[in-house]
Amino acid sequence: MILPDDDHFHDECGVFGVYAHPEAANLVYLGLYALQHRGQESAGIVSVEERYMHMSRGRGLVADVFKPGDIERLKGSSAIGHVRYSTAGDKGNTRNLQPLVVDTAHGGMAIAHNGNLVNAVELRRALEARGSIFQSTMDTEVVVHLTALSRHAHFAERLVEALHQVQGAYALIAMNQSRLIGVRDPAGFRPMVLGRVGNGGYVLSSETCALDLIGATFLRDVEPGELVVIGPDGITSYFPFSPGGPTRQVAKRNLCVFEYIYFARPDSTLDGISVYDARKRIGSCLAKEHPVEAEVVVPVPDSGVPSALGFSQESGIPFEFGIIRNHYVGRTFIEPQQSIRHFGVKIKLNANNRVLQGKRVVLVDDSVVRGTTSRKIVKMVRAAGAREVHVRIASPPTTHPCFYGIDTPNRQELLASNHTVEEMRQYITADSLAFLSLEGLYRAVNGRVGGYCDACFTGNYPIPFPQDRRPVQLTLLKGA
Amino acid sequence: MILPDDDHFHDECGVFGVYAHPEAANLVYLGLYALQHRGQESAGIVSVEERYMHMSRGRGLVADVFKPGDIERLKGSSAIGHVRYSTAGDKGNTRNLQPLVVDTAHGGMAIAHNGNLVNAVELRRALEARGSIFQSTMDTEVVVHLTALSRHAHFAERLVEALHQVQGAYALIAMNQSRLIGVRDPAGFRPMVLGRVGNGGYVLSSETCALDLIGATFLRDVEPGELVVIGPDGITSYFPFSPGGPTRQVAKRNLCVFEYIYFARPDSTLDGISVYDARKRIGSCLAKEHPVEAEVVVPVPDSGVPSALGFSQESGIPFEFGIIRNHYVGRTFIEPQQSIRHFGVKIKLNANNRVLQGKRVVLVDDSVVRGTTSRKIVKMVRAAGAREVHVRIASPPTTHPCFYGIDTPNRQELLASNHTVEEMRQYITADSLAFLSLEGLYRAVNGRVGGYCDACFTGNYPIPFPQDRRPVQLTLLKGA
Amino acid sequence: MILPDDDHFHDECGVFGVYAHPEAANLVYLGLYALQHRGQESAGIVSVEERYMHMSRGRGLVADVFKPGDIERLKGSSAIGHVRYSTAGDKGNTRNLQPLVVDTAHGGMAIAHNGNLVNAVELRRALEARGSIFQSTMDTEVVVHLTALSRHAHFAERLVEALHQVQGAYALIAMNQSRLIGVRDPAGFRPMVLGRVGNGGYVLSSETCALDLIGATFLRDVEPGELVVIGPDGITSYFPFSPGGPTRQVAKRNLCVFEYIYFARPDSTLDGISVYDARKRIGSCLAKEHPVEAEVVVPVPDSGVPSALGFSQESGIPFEFGIIRNHYVGRTFIEPQQSIRHFGVKIKLNANNRVLQGKRVVLVDDSVVRGTTSRKIVKMVRAAGAREVHVRIASPPTTHPCFYGIDTPNRQELLASNHTVEEMRQYITADSLAFLSLEGLYRAVNGRVGGYCDACFTGNYPIPFPQDRRPVQLTLLKGA
Amino acid sequence: MILPDDDHFHDECGVFGVYAHPEAANLVYLGLYALQHRGQESAGIVSVEERYMHMSRGRGLVADVFKPGDIERLKGSSAIGHVRYSTAGDKGNTRNLQPLVVDTAHGGMAIAHNGNLVNAVELRRALEARGSIFQSTMDTEVVVHLTALSRHAHFAERLVEALHQVQGAYALIAMNQSRLIGVRDPAGFRPMVLGRVGNGGYVLSSETCALDLIGATFLRDVEPGELVVIGPDGITSYFPFSPGGPTRQVAKRNLCVFEYIYFARPDSTLDGISVYDARKRIGSCLAKEHPVEAEVVVPVPDSGVPSALGFSQESGIPFEFGIIRNHYVGRTFIEPQQSIRHFGVKIKLNANNRVLQGKRVVLVDDSVVRGTTSRKIVKMVRAAGAREVHVRIASPPTTHPCFYGIDTPNRQELLASNHTVEEMRQYITADSLAFLSLEGLYRAVNGRVGGYCDACFTGNYPIPFPQDRRPVQLTLLKGA
Repeated sequence: MILPDDDHFHDECGVFGVYAHPEAANLVYLGLYALQHRGQESAGIVSVEERYMHMSRGRGLVADVFKPGDIERLKGSSAIGHVRYSTAGDKGNTRNLQPLVVDTAHGGMAIAHNGNLVNAVELRRALEARGSIFQSTMDTEVVVHLTALSRHAHFAERLVEALHQVQGAYALIAMNQSRLIGVRDPAGFRPMVLGRVGNGGYVLSSETCALDLIGATFLRDVEPGELVVIGPDGITSYFPFSPGGPTRQVAKRNLCVFEYIYFARPDSTLDGISVYDARKRIGSCLAKEHPVEAEVVVPVPDSGVPSALGFSQESGIPFEFGIIRNHYVGRTFIEPQQSIRHFGVKIKLNANNRVLQGKRVVLVDDSVVRGTTSRKIVKMVRAAGAREVHVRIASPPTTHPCFYGIDTPNRQELLASNHTVEEMRQYITADSLAFLSLEGLYRAVNGRVGGYCDACFTGNYPIPFPQDRRPVQLTLLKGA
Repeated sequence: MILPDDDHFHDECGVFGVYAHPEAANLVYLGLYALQHRGQESAGIVSVEERYMHMSRGRGLVADVFKPGDIERLKGSSAIGHVRYSTAGDKGNTRNLQPLVVDTAHGGMAIAHNGNLVNAVELRRALEARGSIFQSTMDTEVVVHLTALSRHAHFAERLVEALHQVQGAYALIAMNQSRLIGVRDPAGFRPMVLGRVGNGGYVLSSETCALDLIGATFLRDVEPGELVVIGPDGITSYFPFSPGGPTRQVAKRNLCVFEYIYFARPDSTLDGISVYDARKRIGSCLAKEHPVEAEVVVPVPDSGVPSALGFSQESGIPFEFGIIRNHYVGRTFIEPQQSIRHFGVKIKLNANNRVLQGKRVVLVDDSVVRGTTSRKIVKMVRAAGAREVHVRIASPPTTHPCFYGIDTPNRQELLASNHTVEEMRQYITADSLAFLSLEGLYRAVNGRVGGYCDACFTGNYPIPFPQDRRPVQLTLLKGA
Repeated sequence: MILPDDDHFHDECGVFGVYAHPEAANLVYLGLYALQHRGQESAGIVSVEERYMHMSRGRGLVADVFKPGDIERLKGSSAIGHVRYSTAGDKGNTRNLQPLVVDTAHGGMAIAHNGNLVNAVELRRALEARGSIFQSTMDTEVVVHLTALSRHAHFAERLVEALHQVQGAYALIAMNQSRLIGVRDPAGFRPMVLGRVGNGGYVLSSETCALDLIGATFLRDVEPGELVVIGPDGITSYFPFSPGGPTRQVAKRNLCVFEYIYFARPDSTLDGISVYDARKRIGSCLAKEHPVEAEVVVPVPDSGVPSALGFSQESGIPFEFGIIRNHYVGRTFIEPQQSIRHFGVKIKLNANNRVLQGKRVVLVDDSVVRGTTSRKIVKMVRAAGAREVHVRIASPPTTHPCFYGIDTPNRQELLASNHTVEEMRQYITADSLAFLSLEGLYRAVNGRVGGYCDACFTGNYPIPFPQDRRPVQLTLLKGA
Repeated sequence: MILPDDDHFHDECGVFGVYAHPEAANLVYLGLYALQHRGQESAGIVSVEERYMHMSRGRGLVADVFKPGDIERLKGSSAIGHVRYSTAGDKGNTRNLQPLVVDTAHGGMAIAHNGNLVNAVELRRALEARGSIFQSTMDTEVVVHLTALSRHAHFAERLVEALHQVQGAYALIAMNQSRLIGVRDPAGFRPMVLGRVGNGGYVLSSETCALDLIGATFLRDVEPGELVVIGPDGITSYFPFSPGGPTRQVAKRNLCVFEYIYFARPDSTLDGISVYDARKRIGSCLAKEHPVEAEVVVPVPDSGVPSALGFSQESGIPFEFGIIRNHYVGRTFIEPQQSIRHFGVKIKLNANNRVLQGKRVVLVDDSVVRGTTSRKIVKMVRAAGAREVHVRIASPPTTHPCFYGIDTPNRQELLASNHTVEEMRQYITADSLAFLSLEGLYRAVNGRVGGYCDACFTGNYPIPFPQDRRPVQLTLLKGA
């Protein structure tokens, strides 16, 4: 069994929560469906019904994890859910499922977390030193412990006390028997939005596309550093990390710019900016920065499609589906022993010969990570008869790994970190290769420079991080 | 559990066969992957190893049916496979799996069949009257019986004797311990191509896209009425149904024109015509026949994409992804009890508001069957802010059911069979609605009128058929 | 994965049928539960509801094969079922499931068969020669074909015509939409009983123990050569194989005597003789024939228990459970690589040291087949401290294989076929070894000699059989 | 789906551990097989390989939970395992699986626990108050927390500090990366033995029968209050709960006397007393205390068998299997809607009519809990023709629930707690009913009175316990 070629950065999670709706768990189930692109390894839902917490979690896609009976058993009018893309280190670790649910002195609580804490290991060591025990290797368990340790009277206060101790990226949804809380870290690395649903209910989601599916009304983005408490007394907003007290003041915003390039679904809107529009402007910008003589603009589907369309509209070169994607591909498949050319990529992508034959082709992709897939695609396109293959990448070269919740290779494995663009062009065997500039990216996304985390392109990490990504190894608990 | 909205005609099968390759079963497995769009209900592979036939079949997608151990057990250098879209009548009937495999006086044989026989019930009754027993409700079992009854010495002769007795549409692959046979009915309703693979091996497939995946070389289409026998002595071609003897003379070709509109994958080439190209020309033709003032051309994904692109290129109106498709949707999903607007369609398609808001939208879809989904999509697009919605359909109105291997509703359920275009427009709530003309369709596909089966648009059935589609009911065998 | 040691002859099947009961399928399910000892490889139920036949079959124990939903779907007031112990040749062949169900010119029919036909291969060859096709390698499929070929008007007549052509051992239950038929071959090799259930319903079963469970009343044994037709017009009995016409005359009875020794459940009654009583008398007889000085009589559980009790009561030597059986053992288990002494037997049987230590032990077992397990048991008993181990076998030496529906090793593998008793004693390392005499067996079972098939002890085969058991190999169809 | 009738007290667990064996996990797997009678709801194994802990746990029988791949993945030379009979309160709670595994400041640790802590809720509340979080509702999690909180340098010391705080019954096995620890509570409620295996390895087990299976040598019982530490430096024994310091002094032993009556396997030896021997002496004693005129002694299988044999040998009344048990019964089965007499008991037990007909029957069972099953059995025996049914129970009346690790009904549900023996006789419809006296029980087990916990017969609870068994309800976490 091998995995289909997929040389991308991967988002680690999507979160979704519903408050005060008679079918809370079912709406969360649908919300996770719409957020499935943010994580395909495992999924989970926890609902609360008075002081009982009901849970259903498992490995696999939302469509496979939950059966009708599961949703029925998830009673209660509030529920939260999580989809997860597990990182290389914990593949096969069936304990790392979310939402996390525990019983504490204050009753049950559940947390669904998107992000990564840079001081998780240190905090874990300290917690263990005072006698805390851990059942998973997830950062989120640290937050749960810190919350449980707090002496504050209110759930939100306890959570805030916990979050004051952690550093890193997080958009998390917490729930106890009476409240639903959504919070983004002060930098706002990972997105979260707030909506209304049904008759007085509320919803929190990583992206707006999940609101659309359940017929919820978008209210607004949860702000960086904001904590939204939803309870029987309505919604209250706090800015607990703000230096000037819990009033609305966010010093610096650092939403992950890669959400616009690849992670978010094109029909989502982040911080008021349509992802689809941003991707089209990126393509347009790319065409201006790196024009090329060609007969056809071909996207690498699906992620390259909007930027290729933007490139085509700017350049006037016709847009065509020169590569067709097979959407029935499973997570793994059985490989023949005898080699087939460009096999790993062909299971998912096939060259559409008629479109390519004899043409000078502009091939638009969202990013180059290791370069292995790009190389196979270029070769496949050329084998289909393309006269020239000009690769245009809808982002700057990715030279640095991410420590804020995205699964990226080590720096050594990032092609751009130790190769010039010309070396990269040779490696992927293209006739030309060009990347969008950082300025172009900013211009395309929001028209002005700044306000995003661009560490993977620049190495400017907004939050200090350990030298080595996983400095201390935990006692890994494996299996289920 | 409900099914996501999908108001389409459905192809009933895809077939694939490999001869003389050390990894025959694995190549068939990959071929079925590439043909998955032709049938998602069940899949099966049979391989032959000397006089043993190994079989693996099951319900579900190729990725779910076959495990690595299954492929290993399918030993032998020849193998055939099948993917199936079961018709309404036999859903849940786990006995109707293909390929069929039986033991006969001449040894084992296996058959994979794409199509539908119009005289299957009569033949079955006659066979039963002489004592034959049936284990499924599939037409194909009739062919197997007739082949087994033949007194001819050679496998191909026995199969020909059987096929001389059946009427209808078929593209089938038969295999015994020494030979692989591909055959299309004299009208050539369903497609089949021939290719080379590996070192002296051959491959038969419903479509060329499956050849691409396994690195096979396309040789040619199997002709209507042609029987291709592949054996240790190479390839031999026969035209056994030709009035003037088994020489190459095909009176009339009737390839299903809907293959170009919807069934085939866009990267396939049928009868020398690229499906993608045909769809783009269809869109272009549609723009010429039914122009409209608008700001944006939006496809209903995925099937409407190439024709929408053609429409856009012809009309000059920008092409945009105004509807985003979620490709993670399973075959069924759990529905909330409380109604959500346009729910069935939203689980798969979401309006991309920014593209639609305030715009006059040309919505391009491949066909209208019952109209129920079209209505939901139009409403969803309008709810997203579209000012006007002009629906353009990339085919003529479908007024008649198919009896040649496609799953279509009864005539009464076909919206176009008993409504004018204006009535249909009102039903789907569009501002305007227009269909491609039959002439336009022919022009777009091959430049001249004729040579295709267009019964679903015209009621001109190339082969006489029973008044009622299922006149005599069989003793249905249910379960597994 | 290995199988627990189990060196026994194995019954190949149990059959059960219910007519005219609102919960027919559920009663069959329970009946199969009670007949599980007759076959643990697969199980199946077919019910008839007007002209529909519903089927549920699978590999494994009754408790695992059928889910509540399955039984619900098996609608109708008649149903038949089957449990199967597959023979070595077709292990893993998931096509050989029973009951067989087919559609014929006369409508659907289903058959559940216990037994073995000695001329099945010849009949199959002849059927294939006239064009019949086969989907399994089971004898039963021959009967189905022959029945379908008959021109007779009534189901029973067609079945009789078929059975007139077969030779061998069978107790079978056939069902069509209006009738349930039970039939035993003229020799009556395999058992079958008739009972009443509910309000006017009837039941057919391999053994009486299954009647007890469902609260049915035992009416009588179905006689050798008898065909019982149960229909809307009540019960009719025929003797179609009788030379003097279909009146009650059975020339020779040949019930398998091994049913009393091992196959049947001790709480069943066959031909008016309680199996438990017969086994106790066998033990008593064994004690008379082969007395021994000892302190304790220990059965090899579970099959040796009643004869050990009889031995104890006759000899006055105390009966003790010196070997304890673990009933939680699955069909296979994972074996450690490092060897453990007597491992294969220990997973199921453990020596009860306190009972054995320092004792002269009479170990009573039902039979010796290959002798491998006996050897391990003797060694385990001795390792537990037994001073002497005297093995007493509750049957004569098994020198010949069975061709009438029992899974036995080849003659070469039968320890008794090529070793003297003294050689066998040495092999199993016992202090003494003795077998019940054939006369003793007859005396114990029914008081007089004759009336049973004893071919496995004598080589006197009541029906001629082919030289070699499987002279012609079929095209084996493997997999599912 | 219903459960087969089984009106017994139920042991809650079995534990097993292996130290220093190359196939530790496989031996644990086999050990759990042999301990399956102590718990059938779930099973789990944890192995340690340097600082990694590998885990495999699941619901169901050992044979179903572990696949060959699972055992392979459980690498390392030490492993512990657990089988569990879940109590009514947490059925369906898939989080309550053992062994528990956590990561602490001192590295990973795993615990498998047989027993019940009477102050678990208080301790849990206190732990939660200081910020500890809980992931299950099992007592064992309290022990894990307390161990993690200890500041002691050594694993054994930390565990001892934890155990000093708990009150109740426990036999537990704890493991970290270098040591395996077995410990019994000071009263010694639950059993545990120590053995040697392989070349220098050690094994801990709830019962000796598991040692036999893996070929281990029995060394000795772990003493009440003893803590056995097995490590690279060999075995060390401590008595940390002894008032006079950690030297060998056990004030009072309170092994659960019901282990001899029902829980333990007959081939096990507890505290030097063979369970089989004890049961036979119990039957003998019962015959002396409550003689009866009868023709046959019949056990309720399997648990009543040894005491029935003892009764028979003492009384001289022949022992017969008048009730036959079907060992293929699953944990649940599908019940017909129409009532069948004595149904729940018949699925497992069938009357052997020939043995019972016209006889005065002594029916020997191990205990009467609710009396519902006894009543059905008596009726079934009488329906089979028994002239008189005299029930003899191999234990005193069970009048009080257990709080030390056994699943018993509430006091109100215990038939003996609020009925005289005569009332009980009438309820179960027996001709006579008699229970073994407490003195008789003691005499039978070890020859002298005292040394066991007999609270379920006397209400003399060795450890104070809360008024109500579950005084404070936890936030139940449900699901997986």
